[in-house]
Amino acid sequence: MLRLKAIFSYDGSEFSGYQVQPGKRTVQLELERVLQTMHKGESVKVVASGRTDAGVHATGQVIHFDSTLTLPNDRWKTALNVQLPRDIRILSVEQVRDDFHARFDAKGKTYRYIWSLNEIHSPFERNFTVHADRYKPNIELMKQASCYLLGTHDFSSFCASNTSVKDFVRTVHSIKLEVQKGSNQLHMVINGNGFLYNMVRIIAGTLWEIAIGKKSVEEIRDILESCDRKKAGKTAPAHGLYLENVEYFE
Amino acid sequence: MLRLKAIFSYDGSEFSGYQVQPGKRTVQLELERVLQTMHKGESVKVVASGRTDAGVHATGQVIHFDSTLTLPNDRWKTALNVQLPRDIRILSVEQVRDDFHARFDAKGKTYRYIWSLNEIHSPFERNFTVHADRYKPNIELMKQASCYLLGTHDFSSFCASNTSVKDFVRTVHSIKLEVQKGSNQLHMVINGNGFLYNMVRIIAGTLWEIAIGKKSVEEIRDILESCDRKKAGKTAPAHGLYLENVEYFE
Repeated sequence: MLRLKAIFSYDGSEFSGYQVQPGKRTVQLELERVLQTMHKGESVKVVASGRTDAGVHATGQVIHFDSTLTLPNDRWKTALNVQLPRDIRILSVEQVRDDFHARFDAKGKTYRYIWSLNEIHSPFERNFTVHADRYKPNIELMKQASCYLLGTHDFSSFCASNTSVKDFVRTVHSIKLEVQKGSNQLHMVINGNGFLYNMVRIIAGTLWEIAIGKKSVEEIRDILESCDRKKAGKTAPAHGLYLENVEYFE
Repeated sequence: MLRLKAIFSYDGSEFSGYQVQPGKRTVQLELERVLQTMHKGESVKVVASGRTDAGVHATGQVIHFDSTLTLPNDRWKTALNVQLPRDIRILSVEQVRDDFHARFDAKGKTYRYIWSLNEIHSPFERNFTVHADRYKPNIELMKQASCYLLGTHDFSSFCASNTSVKDFVRTVHSIKLEVQKGSNQLHMVINGNGFLYNMVRIIAGTLWEIAIGKKSVEEIRDILESCDRKKAGKTAPAHGLYLENVEYFE
């Protein structure tokens, strides 16, 4: 039995999220279906760094799985891509130590959130960015507010209420906010040691409300300290979010 | 009755092409459905600069239509976009002279064709570019071959056989070929006074075969002179093609 780690990308638009759910098309289902075919009908369980919700994309999601097959890394990649649907693409496969765990060994993650600032929301961006609509966001205010979130905090205010998690303390290492000139998109890139359920989308939604003047910069401090989900902004839409990278302990 | 000209964009992925066909979702159908609602059930016929096939995109398609409504141009745009599906977006609407005709008054068109040269075809590009797969195209050869197509020629060799057209003479003003560094995409931008059925896709397919060494540069001359569709390359896939601009006589 060899343990393999795969890094992959998916367009979340036509998936009911990452995790297997009865009767739904999910990313995990497609991966396990293809692996089962490659293993002559024997089921292969894949373990991801974490789930993503319906509509959320990934450019660097990570899984591990065990296999009896002995293929060179590049052959693994090609064999999986040939059989996977075109909205999932394997970027790399490598053999790892037997006890590598895609979820428990993750020491950090990077997510990207993208808004389109174009007056008209291009049909080609419609599933991949959230439209700013008539709003002209003040990026400086967003940057100021984002500084309050850096470091180690109880992020209860930024966690969806339907969670089973007990420990709400996480560390956010960086939040970068930048307008990309050519595409006129606003990108938020956030890195931390882990994220609560919907945490990135609630941070995006809250910073956005600050950017458009619905909340003040100073409020972010009260929101964080209150540990009350109701104080934070709305959960920003799923289709603006990308899981970009998962870092592991060596 | 006022005559209006609208410029619009669409993602062709989920349309059975531009033109109305019984039982199919087409761009024209969606436009006429929304205009009919705006005109209290009265049907409004739209006339486009030309059709596009299933899967073909547009960033600057043009229609004209007549209306009894008197709205400022910007209100027209907003009213249409609110009701249209998100894979069609109106970019501008303006009142034009009563005898303006979106098809007959067109003096030129620009199309763009995009190949992705990335080793892995990104899920986010899959409907918007054609994947070069394992091929490394020789762009210089494509450029050399494209020069033979410039000017006024009988383009029968570059026209799908199922056409009712009698006159195969068209003028190609320019063909630009360029690799975009950031995205690693190859773009072909072609401008001419008009294009035969599938002409851009057959030109793209033929230049591609030259780029990957399946045909020589010199062959393009024979292909053109033979007036025989069978000599040219395969029709390149629809989802790499964009109608970018339509020019009109003032």
